[in-house]
Amino acid sequence: TVKTKISELKKDWIRLNVGGKYFMSTRSTLCKEESFLCRLCQNQEDLKIDTDEMGAYMIDRDPNYFHVILNYLRHGKLILETNLVEEGVLEEAEFYNIQPLIELIKERVRDRDKRQADSELGNSQN
Amino acid sequence: TVKTKISELKKDWIRLNVGGKYFMSTRSTLCKEESFLCRLCQNQEDLKIDTDEMGAYMIDRDPNYFHVILNYLRHGKLILETNLVEEGVLEEAEFYNIQPLIELIKERVRDRDKRQADSELGNSQN
Amino acid sequence: TVKTKISELKKDWIRLNVGGKYFMSTRSTLCKEESFLCRLCQNQEDLKIDTDEMGAYMIDRDPNYFHVILNYLRHGKLILETNLVEEGVLEEAEFYNIQPLIELIKERVRDRDKRQADSELGNSQN
Amino acid sequence: TVKTKISELKKDWIRLNVGGKYFMSTRSTLCKEESFLCRLCQNQEDLKIDTDEMGAYMIDRDPNYFHVILNYLRHGKLILETNLVEEGVLEEAEFYNIQPLIELIKERVRDRDKRQADSELGNSQN
Amino acid sequence: TVKTKISELKKDWIRLNVGGKYFMSTRSTLCKEESFLCRLCQNQEDLKIDTDEMGAYMIDRDPNYFHVILNYLRHGKLILETNLVEEGVLEEAEFYNIQPLIELIKERVRDRDKRQADSELGNSQN
Repeated sequence: TVKTKISELKKDWIRLNVGGKYFMSTRSTLCKEESFLCRLCQNQEDLKIDTDEMGAYMIDRDPNYFHVILNYLRHGKLILETNLVEEGVLEEAEFYNIQPLIELIKERVRDRDKRQADSELGNSQN
Repeated sequence: TVKTKISELKKDWIRLNVGGKYFMSTRSTLCKEESFLCRLCQNQEDLKIDTDEMGAYMIDRDPNYFHVILNYLRHGKLILETNLVEEGVLEEAEFYNIQPLIELIKERVRDRDKRQADSELGNSQN
Repeated sequence: TVKTKISELKKDWIRLNVGGKYFMSTRSTLCKEESFLCRLCQNQEDLKIDTDEMGAYMIDRDPNYFHVILNYLRHGKLILETNLVEEGVLEEAEFYNIQPLIELIKERVRDRDKRQADSELGNSQN
Repeated sequence: TVKTKISELKKDWIRLNVGGKYFMSTRSTLCKEESFLCRLCQNQEDLKIDTDEMGAYMIDRDPNYFHVILNYLRHGKLILETNLVEEGVLEEAEFYNIQPLIELIKERVRDRDKRQADSELGNSQN
Repeated sequence: TVKTKISELKKDWIRLNVGGKYFMSTRSTLCKEESFLCRLCQNQEDLKIDTDEMGAYMIDRDPNYFHVILNYLRHGKLILETNLVEEGVLEEAEFYNIQPLIELIKERVRDRDKRQADSELGNSQN
């Protein structure tokens, strides 16, 4: 029945308390890449992650950049709202240790800095 | 009486837990277009959506772009706050599989990229 | 006594659940203009608005633009944060059917579009 | 002991429900300037402010601009995030009736409008 | 066992109620630098910080800038979303009395003002 399927699947959901804000995701998303988040799902003994009174894993990081990390694991793209800065995501990607995302951000920072340098050079030559 | 009408209508409301944030909408809004959200309302057996302790359907996607999707279903327009990016909505529209919205966003991305290319061309010719 | 006054006034407060987010306002604010929100306060039989487990009226619309609508009713001005777009408020003003606000937004859209057209014309003539 | 000190101080905290969102501040902050907020702390009989089920004073105003008001009372400066507009704070400062803040905003609006007029004049003379 | 390790570590978490919004962090983060936040963790008698019904330390400051402060303690960098202003962080850094962060922000303000002055000079000489 549907009910049985639901209770079986329920075990796949993970609640995270990132710096005081709640996020929910699934084991399969969090393990898309090798990372701290994947190891957390696997209950690796050496991680020793605390859980709060809601059963959420507690992570002492900024919640404002965490959705960018999570979305990368969900759909494989780096999508940044215009008010956020690359450096903020880089710090989190390095903390969670997601290698392909770290590479992606560093590349984007290089592109951004090159564009800015070109544009300033252009202005000063006018 | 009013009371009876209310309890009858109540069944039409759906609570969604999108990546840890709650949204409420109605069956009629969610079924405006064929999509994952409509199939979810119809309790299709093959979807196997989990519900949380609040009875909300759990969806492992970003809540920050979800209101754009929901508003499209509510009033048929694609309205994007200036800090959001088209690519972010596209990922969600593709996940929820809302064909006319996917077309709409792709068109807008093409327009945006054309405008940018024109503007850069204009600058380099000055 | 103060206590009696408080309990008397309490009846004036209305809780709204707009798309899953809570807002509070008063009957006198919501009835500043003829609108869906005013009719809702008057418990008009033909509206058949649902209430949730908190006793809040449930409205299937975007919460992110609702404060602009509510502020208009509070102080009579249309004040838009810079990341919001006029079209988003227009959709809501039309849904809630607040005629003077609809006029105000349409006028502002016309002004904005005229300014943009002028500016683009200026650029192309340089 | 520390415990006794804490319970003594606790009375100084005020919970506010501004348009549905909670804020906490202290009596000493709210009474930094003469205003509606100070009179509210002093339980003046003629104010007749409602409280909700959390014991919070209920204020029928926008929560999105309220932190600017509160921060002004905390540190005496007018600090506006770039997506907010001066007019939005002015409406609130006038409602709460904080005279020095009203003056400060009006001055800033005059400066902003002057800068814009100068810049447009500059452009049209090119 | 894992369980014992978890309960041992749990004591390290601190809940903060900053102006009505909750944040969670750890004693080791909050004591990265000498500051009000570190003294708060050490339960210094002379601080007399109130706690609310959730056991959170109550701080009468703006929650919107607090994550910048907390992130600085987490990873040692000053990362500002584009809608925030340096002056807003400076007020908080001075309140929490984090000397190296105060220096960092003042330096960034000087850089920003210099860049603006240069750019305005450049424009007026065209």
